[in-house]
Amino acid sequence: MNKKSKTKPAARNSNTHLYAVIMAGGSGTRFWPLSRQLSPKQLLRIDSDDSLIQQTVKRINSLIPLNRTYVVTNENHYLEMKMQLASGVNFILEPEGRNTAPAIGLAAVNLYKTDADSLMLVMPADHIIKKSEKFLDLVKDAAALAKKGYLVTFGIRPKRPETGYGYIKTGSRVKGQEGFKVDRFTEKPDIKTAQKYLMSGDYLWNSGIFLWKSSAIINEIKDYLPELYKKLAIIKKAVGSEGFDSAVKAVYSGIKPISIDYGILEKSKKVIVIPADIDWCDVGSWDALDEVVERDKEGNIKAGNVIDIGSSNSILYGGKRVLATIGLKDLVVVDTADATLVCKKSEAQKVGKIVDELKKRGYEEHITHRTVHRPWGSYTVLENGNRFKIKRIEVKPKAKLSLQKHHHRSEHWVVVSGTAKVTNGDKVCNIHTNESTYIPPSTIHRLENPGIVPLHIIEVQSGEYLEEDDIVRIDDDYERIKKG
Amino acid sequence: MNKKSKTKPAARNSNTHLYAVIMAGGSGTRFWPLSRQLSPKQLLRIDSDDSLIQQTVKRINSLIPLNRTYVVTNENHYLEMKMQLASGVNFILEPEGRNTAPAIGLAAVNLYKTDADSLMLVMPADHIIKKSEKFLDLVKDAAALAKKGYLVTFGIRPKRPETGYGYIKTGSRVKGQEGFKVDRFTEKPDIKTAQKYLMSGDYLWNSGIFLWKSSAIINEIKDYLPELYKKLAIIKKAVGSEGFDSAVKAVYSGIKPISIDYGILEKSKKVIVIPADIDWCDVGSWDALDEVVERDKEGNIKAGNVIDIGSSNSILYGGKRVLATIGLKDLVVVDTADATLVCKKSEAQKVGKIVDELKKRGYEEHITHRTVHRPWGSYTVLENGNRFKIKRIEVKPKAKLSLQKHHHRSEHWVVVSGTAKVTNGDKVCNIHTNESTYIPPSTIHRLENPGIVPLHIIEVQSGEYLEEDDIVRIDDDYERIKKG
Repeated sequence: MNKKSKTKPAARNSNTHLYAVIMAGGSGTRFWPLSRQLSPKQLLRIDSDDSLIQQTVKRINSLIPLNRTYVVTNENHYLEMKMQLASGVNFILEPEGRNTAPAIGLAAVNLYKTDADSLMLVMPADHIIKKSEKFLDLVKDAAALAKKGYLVTFGIRPKRPETGYGYIKTGSRVKGQEGFKVDRFTEKPDIKTAQKYLMSGDYLWNSGIFLWKSSAIINEIKDYLPELYKKLAIIKKAVGSEGFDSAVKAVYSGIKPISIDYGILEKSKKVIVIPADIDWCDVGSWDALDEVVERDKEGNIKAGNVIDIGSSNSILYGGKRVLATIGLKDLVVVDTADATLVCKKSEAQKVGKIVDELKKRGYEEHITHRTVHRPWGSYTVLENGNRFKIKRIEVKPKAKLSLQKHHHRSEHWVVVSGTAKVTNGDKVCNIHTNESTYIPPSTIHRLENPGIVPLHIIEVQSGEYLEEDDIVRIDDDYERIKKG
Repeated sequence: MNKKSKTKPAARNSNTHLYAVIMAGGSGTRFWPLSRQLSPKQLLRIDSDDSLIQQTVKRINSLIPLNRTYVVTNENHYLEMKMQLASGVNFILEPEGRNTAPAIGLAAVNLYKTDADSLMLVMPADHIIKKSEKFLDLVKDAAALAKKGYLVTFGIRPKRPETGYGYIKTGSRVKGQEGFKVDRFTEKPDIKTAQKYLMSGDYLWNSGIFLWKSSAIINEIKDYLPELYKKLAIIKKAVGSEGFDSAVKAVYSGIKPISIDYGILEKSKKVIVIPADIDWCDVGSWDALDEVVERDKEGNIKAGNVIDIGSSNSILYGGKRVLATIGLKDLVVVDTADATLVCKKSEAQKVGKIVDELKKRGYEEHITHRTVHRPWGSYTVLENGNRFKIKRIEVKPKAKLSLQKHHHRSEHWVVVSGTAKVTNGDKVCNIHTNESTYIPPSTIHRLENPGIVPLHIIEVQSGEYLEEDDIVRIDDDYERIKKG
């Protein structure tokens, strides 16, 4: 360590201009039924008590403090990410997904306006890196290269002929530097090509981790994606002003979706790749768990309420319900409150087809879980009936829901533990355990936990329309009024 | 047919003394999670819209009317069986299971007292017979033999070297009759022995179907099980009197459990076996479904809300929840509201070990389903919380629950569809959709559906003890007052 700090004082000092840009817009379906549209992979606790995005923020925290950490995501995921991440993290919200080039461009114009010398460490929010120390060392190396104007990409030495990743073919070593020139980027190969790549030793996996100056990437966008550059220029002008959100909204729908790899990196002359031996995994599907989670002596990975007899080499992922398994081999079983997946391990990448079928059938099991987390607590849908819906609602101590009303439903509330402070039209009163109240339609109301232990109520909704969007928010602690 | 009726006029006429005795005491665990202690295999609709016990009653109905059909079961299963079976069927309740010899003895003394010439066709309630017509013909043949004093057993020609059944070795043909003498009964064999049996052609599967005179079996019990005979003699005296139930209760706990095969059939000189080519299956475990349910062109058996991609030769048994399966081979997947089983088909007989583990853990997923059927309708436990429990209750039109009270809980009722007539202490009133009421502890109350469409209410129970046995019944349409 001492040696290192002696040899790289410049890189160390440059870190005050280093910013983290975490790409967290994905709504990964490949971890269904654990992941849902509104609970994507980056929010899941797959291999540890921290979710993947929490790990991503913590991993670089010794190098990049929270106030220089930016998460690029969208409104659907913003609240839950905010709940998971320490306060201080910055958010940049895309109105809609437009692939990585526009998202990176949006972050770049924000950072450039904040700090014209800013360096952006771009990282997907949903990958696992086991050798964190090594990664941080490489980030420092990459930062030194980026300062010189290079677009640095992190390439992973292949361990197997993987057909699920893009590859980078390395060229000659950059004189006096840690990196290599890039010969070319390749699409996901077939198995024969992947085997050839593996044997040749010249190919690295494209990790989707990049480091460059915000000014450098903006310049490259100007050269190679001039249409995008024009839109970003409009946004850039609005950064820091009140009109920012509406400028982004106005511009974004006209942006053509394109990836940073295809749009810039495959064309730019400034790209450099540094080989990264950091035990990286993109956790692209259920079978990838074998790489990142320790298996028991039978080769199984087990979680939740599993009763197993004699299974081996399987992923048995239960929840609160009983999941009983007998004699399974090379299988993935994932059990959640409202859906169960049983899948041959080698076909785990077909989960997306199940999600397509759920969409086609008009189901909702790919959108939300039965339990939905909110800043004030959570609710669990116990039953969705004909003209009625039953929820158990948990409100954290001192927290309150928005002041709201519904056009189409009335609500019966029974307090089953704790004390509720209820605003019901003009009246405000406390409702205690084993007491109930009734909220008529169109009546302004609010549920609040004034106490110091959690409040649990059972809500029986009754009416002709019982979806979440029948809500008019009059006041809200969590700035959700705009969202209707 | 004409030929038959000409040759067997005696057998035809004897049918007025022919009684069906359906052995329905089993609490089969081998179809868990679909079967539960309180929903055993015989009550399940496994291969058709009729449950196995409904099929058993209907199968012989053209020969034996309902008033000569007796179901031997226990109090736990009595109500649900009564709901499933047409009125007119007789029930004989065992206070506790004592294996087949006491159960058959109990039925025999009942029938003998009713009709001294009675013939008993003893049948398990949970088997499938596809060739019903053939079976009825054989019953007529067997009845003729039974009239002569024989104990007739039905032997099934083996189709495979099955290790899960007992076998009967046939002896010489009984002169001038359809049957064979029995050389010996055998225990379940190992696979080598089973193969030998299959090759020899002298062995038949023991189906557990018997036909004999009640007087004949009572005499054999006297000779071979004298202790049991003494207890049955006490019960016999009480048949038809008010003291019957208490006589059975007093005697039964002292009875030693023993099977009819081991206790009588292996020893008696009067046993005769008739080979029965009736496409019989005892549906002993999930993999047996392959024998009795038609498979699709991939060899799968599918039911419920299943989304499958590319599975083959598997049993995919879903319910209302989403069950997604990908690339499975030779697997059994059974998904219910509160538990899921995933099991290699060839290891389906190990399900009993899962049930053992559930017992050991003190779980309840082997006892009841989340939805419990009652004569007045059903209830579904939506959530079992700390000091609260949520049920959805459905009451059939014109039906009512018992007049009752609870010591330890209060109940909040919200009507979500239909109209409820509620007795609450001294008051009786109608509660309409979207109205609610509150039943305090120790208050006598009753829920009733006075209407002509089903009534659905949500019940929120609150209190220190929320089990089903905290109920004092004051009045009940379904004679459940004794049972507390």
